[in-house]
Amino acid sequence: MIDDVAAMAPPQETIEPFRAITISRLAHELKAQGRSVIHMEFGQPSTGAPPAAIAEAHRVLDIDGMGYWESAPLKARIARLYRDRYGVEVSPDQLLLTNGASPALVLALSSRFEPGDRITMARPGYVAYRNTVKALKMVPVEIGCGPEEHYQLTAAALEALEPAPAGVIIASPANPTGSIIPPEELAAIVAVCLRRGIVIVSDEIYHGLSYTGRTPSVLEFAPEAFVINSFSKYWSMAGWRLGWLLVPPGHIERAKAFIGNLFLTPPSLSQHAGLVAMDQTEVLEGHIQTYARNRDRMLAALPSLGLKSIAPPDGAFYIWADIGHLTDDSVAFCEQLLRDTGVATAPGVDFDPVDGHRFMRFSFAVSTPEIEEALSRITPWFESRSA
Amino acid sequence: MIDDVAAMAPPQETIEPFRAITISRLAHELKAQGRSVIHMEFGQPSTGAPPAAIAEAHRVLDIDGMGYWESAPLKARIARLYRDRYGVEVSPDQLLLTNGASPALVLALSSRFEPGDRITMARPGYVAYRNTVKALKMVPVEIGCGPEEHYQLTAAALEALEPAPAGVIIASPANPTGSIIPPEELAAIVAVCLRRGIVIVSDEIYHGLSYTGRTPSVLEFAPEAFVINSFSKYWSMAGWRLGWLLVPPGHIERAKAFIGNLFLTPPSLSQHAGLVAMDQTEVLEGHIQTYARNRDRMLAALPSLGLKSIAPPDGAFYIWADIGHLTDDSVAFCEQLLRDTGVATAPGVDFDPVDGHRFMRFSFAVSTPEIEEALSRITPWFESRSA
Repeated sequence: MIDDVAAMAPPQETIEPFRAITISRLAHELKAQGRSVIHMEFGQPSTGAPPAAIAEAHRVLDIDGMGYWESAPLKARIARLYRDRYGVEVSPDQLLLTNGASPALVLALSSRFEPGDRITMARPGYVAYRNTVKALKMVPVEIGCGPEEHYQLTAAALEALEPAPAGVIIASPANPTGSIIPPEELAAIVAVCLRRGIVIVSDEIYHGLSYTGRTPSVLEFAPEAFVINSFSKYWSMAGWRLGWLLVPPGHIERAKAFIGNLFLTPPSLSQHAGLVAMDQTEVLEGHIQTYARNRDRMLAALPSLGLKSIAPPDGAFYIWADIGHLTDDSVAFCEQLLRDTGVATAPGVDFDPVDGHRFMRFSFAVSTPEIEEALSRITPWFESRSA
Repeated sequence: MIDDVAAMAPPQETIEPFRAITISRLAHELKAQGRSVIHMEFGQPSTGAPPAAIAEAHRVLDIDGMGYWESAPLKARIARLYRDRYGVEVSPDQLLLTNGASPALVLALSSRFEPGDRITMARPGYVAYRNTVKALKMVPVEIGCGPEEHYQLTAAALEALEPAPAGVIIASPANPTGSIIPPEELAAIVAVCLRRGIVIVSDEIYHGLSYTGRTPSVLEFAPEAFVINSFSKYWSMAGWRLGWLLVPPGHIERAKAFIGNLFLTPPSLSQHAGLVAMDQTEVLEGHIQTYARNRDRMLAALPSLGLKSIAPPDGAFYIWADIGHLTDDSVAFCEQLLRDTGVATAPGVDFDPVDGHRFMRFSFAVSTPEIEEALSRITPWFESRSA
């Protein structure tokens, strides 16, 4: 189950483009030609920011000069989120506000590790983990995770990895699978990391989006972890470009020096709006109900689609499905599906360079009518291929 | 004049924090205590976005779901800027939209160079050049530039540097000096770079802000250069976090793969507003008139301040002044000035680790009444010290 897919990154190493973007471009072309297209290729909420957040943005637009700015109230409010959601005390000073989760990962990796350091992660996994590690000249060490491992990292796999990597990127709920690491397994993973000196970077961007129970933060077990989060998923504010990196107390000054040089501050308006969004529980939980309903519709439809092997969709808004009985070229498969039905999906190769040719990812972060329309189009398409 | 200040960056190399931030924090404390404070410590326009851009933001807030988005019209409009301002043809496809100039620099450096590569730049210079190079494990090679060199890089200095560096960061108009490289010198610099195989990264963030004539883009001489720009200065939209990196044709696919992994897209709302801002010439030129007036006031006051040696303030909105006759500790000097007069300025050490202890930077991107009030406060303070 464990294998290194990358040796030391060579000069001018390959950073693969997202193939889902290719699919998305085609989807937009088809739409421009008058076709009806349903976008299930990206992990992007269709819901938009809570109305109160938008109202706050209107208010601030007229009174704020919008210079470089870090919102102290927002940092305090995020600290409260950790208390309320996880029973964990963090200092607002540990929080660095970023332009979304992506630069938060760049910040964590560049400020904590060195070129050549081995950073491990699950495969399948979010493509930017592997590629950002490579872009920073560190070495991605992917651990293949299949059905037996709940498609997730395990303590046993981390224990068996030789030599111990410098760091691990934990993602639960995960993209593309939606799988969640159970609390007792997460505790065991942390114990291995502490014993072996492996620095933890936990991407918790899908927290708040779980359908099978509470998702623990790695902070409940590892106060020394780096934690990434963003307003792009649960708060439905992807294009507002707001996220954060929570750093351990001993790392604050170094991380601040890095962010001040590499990135400066996130958008002022988004910080104002994000603060208001955090109190819009009713609206946000309404989104979750939509995703839960969409998920139910998808799961109910899988037998008709002939998709028998999927990752456990515990959280996030994805179905990661094995299509190995239908194709060995997931890019061509997703493209054909799009051309024939107008339903855009993501080919598995983005997330798994080894087995992704026989997987695809559906995002169900669209409206329920869109899910129903998509299923009515793709069901006969899949049926005709499975026959 | 030429000296390397850094050897190969050691593990956990020091990334210095901005000392201007320390001054700014103190300024905010004093303000909270009821003191009147004038902020001349940061390079941040006080004017805010053009009203039409704000109106566009209001309009879009109500109708756009604001997902991840790249504005094709904005890229086309920026391409037109290069045609209109410089007579240079670029393809919109060469433009990568970023969260401001800072990540554009990260993108240029990380996608084009390797750890260990030597990147040269002027000293004094913007602190993030040196620190971002170090954060990415490249080696900053600073070229000391004083009055004889117009406080700028010269072709002769680049020619004399041995071995040839992998890259050069050109900044004209420069921060902290405001100095501009004359067109014929810029052409000569490009010629040296072409001959010696030095990759050019040109930070043109202060373009549009010149008081002594047109500032050429490096693209007029070097189509293969990387060019950084942002809406933070000329367009007065710092907190909107919008900028771009223009990459040479052969580098587009690699740069796109990097941005898709490291950063994704800039704020959607800012892209909408930025597009409108680009046509607000009258408002924007009004800002320049304010800066020009402020600059005149500052230059007229310098003799009373006893400041006889300054860098040529050709552009941007800075005065870089030698205060060596008054102090050898610019941080303590700026702090005392702030405590005594309520005028916040930036100590030179942020921009020049060698000689910055005897320099300071004034930003005149405030309102003219603020400049006048600031001068009325600091003139007697400086007079009493020069006596």
